[in-house]
Amino acid sequence: MLPNSLVSKLEEIVGEKNISTDKYELLAYTITDRSYVSRIQLMGLNLKPEYMYDCVVWPQTTEQVSEIVKLANKYRVPIIPYGGGTNDMGGTVPLTGGIAVDLKRLDKIIEINERSARVHTQAGVILQILEWELNKHGLTTGHAPACMYDATIGGTLSTRSSGSLSNKYGKIPDMTLGLEVVLPTGEIVNIKPVPEGSTGPALKHLFLGAEGVFGIITSAVLRTFQLPEVRRFRSVLFKNLHNGIEAGRKIMQSGISPAAIRLSDEAETMKNHKMQGCYCVFCFEGPREIVDAEEKIVMKICQEEGAEDLGSEEGKRWWERKYYMYYSTPRSSVYPPEEGKIRFAIVPDTAASYDEIEPLYYDILNVVKKYGISVYSHFSHWYPHGTMVYPVIYFNVIDNIEEAMKIYTAVWNDIAAVILKYKTASLNHHHGVGFILGRYLDKEYGEPLFRIFKEIKKILDPNGIMNPGKLGL
Amino acid sequence: MLPNSLVSKLEEIVGEKNISTDKYELLAYTITDRSYVSRIQLMGLNLKPEYMYDCVVWPQTTEQVSEIVKLANKYRVPIIPYGGGTNDMGGTVPLTGGIAVDLKRLDKIIEINERSARVHTQAGVILQILEWELNKHGLTTGHAPACMYDATIGGTLSTRSSGSLSNKYGKIPDMTLGLEVVLPTGEIVNIKPVPEGSTGPALKHLFLGAEGVFGIITSAVLRTFQLPEVRRFRSVLFKNLHNGIEAGRKIMQSGISPAAIRLSDEAETMKNHKMQGCYCVFCFEGPREIVDAEEKIVMKICQEEGAEDLGSEEGKRWWERKYYMYYSTPRSSVYPPEEGKIRFAIVPDTAASYDEIEPLYYDILNVVKKYGISVYSHFSHWYPHGTMVYPVIYFNVIDNIEEAMKIYTAVWNDIAAVILKYKTASLNHHHGVGFILGRYLDKEYGEPLFRIFKEIKKILDPNGIMNPGKLGL
Repeated sequence: MLPNSLVSKLEEIVGEKNISTDKYELLAYTITDRSYVSRIQLMGLNLKPEYMYDCVVWPQTTEQVSEIVKLANKYRVPIIPYGGGTNDMGGTVPLTGGIAVDLKRLDKIIEINERSARVHTQAGVILQILEWELNKHGLTTGHAPACMYDATIGGTLSTRSSGSLSNKYGKIPDMTLGLEVVLPTGEIVNIKPVPEGSTGPALKHLFLGAEGVFGIITSAVLRTFQLPEVRRFRSVLFKNLHNGIEAGRKIMQSGISPAAIRLSDEAETMKNHKMQGCYCVFCFEGPREIVDAEEKIVMKICQEEGAEDLGSEEGKRWWERKYYMYYSTPRSSVYPPEEGKIRFAIVPDTAASYDEIEPLYYDILNVVKKYGISVYSHFSHWYPHGTMVYPVIYFNVIDNIEEAMKIYTAVWNDIAAVILKYKTASLNHHHGVGFILGRYLDKEYGEPLFRIFKEIKKILDPNGIMNPGKLGL
Repeated sequence: MLPNSLVSKLEEIVGEKNISTDKYELLAYTITDRSYVSRIQLMGLNLKPEYMYDCVVWPQTTEQVSEIVKLANKYRVPIIPYGGGTNDMGGTVPLTGGIAVDLKRLDKIIEINERSARVHTQAGVILQILEWELNKHGLTTGHAPACMYDATIGGTLSTRSSGSLSNKYGKIPDMTLGLEVVLPTGEIVNIKPVPEGSTGPALKHLFLGAEGVFGIITSAVLRTFQLPEVRRFRSVLFKNLHNGIEAGRKIMQSGISPAAIRLSDEAETMKNHKMQGCYCVFCFEGPREIVDAEEKIVMKICQEEGAEDLGSEEGKRWWERKYYMYYSTPRSSVYPPEEGKIRFAIVPDTAASYDEIEPLYYDILNVVKKYGISVYSHFSHWYPHGTMVYPVIYFNVIDNIEEAMKIYTAVWNDIAAVILKYKTASLNHHHGVGFILGRYLDKEYGEPLFRIFKEIKKILDPNGIMNPGKLGL
């Protein structure tokens, strides 16, 4: 419970319509489709499931955000920056109560600069809304994660997210030119949207991926790209996973970047396509001449790796339905299908170099096998130097929540241990770490880097009010 | 002068052959071709020109570097990390004496991993030597700055440098996967060479571009690329600068990346090519099909901008001679041509968005005009969202060193003021800031960011021993 005087002062800042302490509203914020998973997970960590926000505020300006943060400092009350609430890693779960600062009213697209291929947008804008607006000008962000109908710009920046077309357009940090950030002290930082520079360390990277622990991103200047002249698909079937990964590697190292490569492992191929082998879909986009050249090079490499050509129709269908799984998941598999039954899935996405990705993948399968649960994986987000594996692990239906949570925690621990064993594997590729993976971040960084990280936190957030308990802090 | 006990202990660490306090050796380190400019510049800042290193050491291992730094902390003696000494901005000038830690004996290429397209190299390796070694395996770093025959990996990482082919391969931070850094306390940080990750802020960016103020980079894992199947050139002549910049913009926004675009302004075109208009050379590289497609798209855009096709021969000549100016400069123009005569050049390279680059360029010309000195500019390092201008400013021959230095300082001040006026312009694009531009870094960052930067410095370097006086610290 917040002191009444704090609530009154928050009301003065945002107006009484833009604050709520109503317990059902707060429950709705806590138990959204995605954060319901987080609540189950909370229990798995033996944290109290009744942890809830004390209050939610809807500021409309950077100055209001700054005033809220200053006030929270005075009262030593936690702030949890809140965008679309889509994160998988519990990044917005209120571990010690506090004020949810929902940024969705910072919803202005401030400037679309076609000549200089950039857009200045407030942090509360939903990705798909920005995308629709840019599309009217023949532009795109190139950023298309599954959550884009729910997630905000601020959330995507705060988790270093990747979209379906990342091979070509990069990760969100690659697309970010400038930032406005309200620091945990309430001061406002503006990072210039320069094309590139050599002016000391690029400090924008302190805030990108920080999941709100170093401040609240209130606006950003992002790159834009022209909508491609051509978007084309092609599917193939590899005899086995190794051939598929080798093809992906050779393609990415040949000097081209198909916008997407999505390679299913044997289990996912059988489940989704009822075929033996490894299904793979390619998306090409850009000027027609480039797409023609890329498709030719890709098909030559696939042929060398013994793949069967499945044509272009399957790929188109994948593109049209690529987000179906994401938006249907809570209803079909994660939400308890009936009272007292626990059923959910986790996704420990990780990336590694080509010499480590296959052993890492098989090590993850072995963990899952040990627990007798099922896993379907795909490989997407390809780089010349490595790729990402996305294992979707479905837990069995279990009656006993205590038992379910024990297995859940054990699986995460085992998988994190496997990932940390590899010298090029990332604890997470694009979902962030929140508190679920935050527990292992000290091992990912190692000492003395993790100590430095904690010391930077102390400089930026002397009272420790910003999103406590996340990123291992 | 260093205490004898410190010199003895340094000898114990590196061996007596690998340390020197000989004044001629130290003078040679201070007055290299490039840092001679720095010495003139030092005088321009009214700092004592007699500032020199007290000692130079040549460690061979990361552990030795760590021991040296620990010792320097104990004695509170400055450390200046030293690579090739090629920097233009005085980043290695010993403003308060101290120990030059020359890293050129950390010269091992530790691992070339062809399958995973990466190389692990020590920081003292000269860029061109790494390049030759990779070429034997059919690989390249894609990093080709003019200084590559002199500069080290550590130097290039510490200045966020860009090479001639940056349009295609990016800046050195884009190529960097992992880092080993000796912190100012002597502790050793290892940043994992993951393909990509979402595990909090990407802290490698604290050290990239830090010019040694946050520690000494001792090794790095860099991306490698396959040597291109085809490298091809094409030159054109635009009627005026605006047409040339518009063509570059349209090309970079069309979804392709020619490896290099080098557009000369009218002054440089007349000086180098004896032609009216703006000369431009393109370099294409990659698979043959891609190069064919890119060249076709580029020539179509150039035609739309009214350019005259000059064929491919001129471009080849540019490529073969592209570093001539760099390596001949000290002898022909910067070194005093005769006793008592001062003649030198400066290069305030900056990048800005397409809507600001032309006004910025003309503002720089106006500054130069005011002083009656000459300037020849080119535009290279193109992005979809902006480009870089590289004005080479030649000062007149002046007899009086005091007078020369007054003009020199005034020109830098005026140009920095012009750059800082633009909201998308970078104080420097790829040379770093050292102490010459470090004076303006507080304005580039603004508050509270510059204060945070200084506080991070205090955490990492509590005794302030690392490269003092650089980056405005």
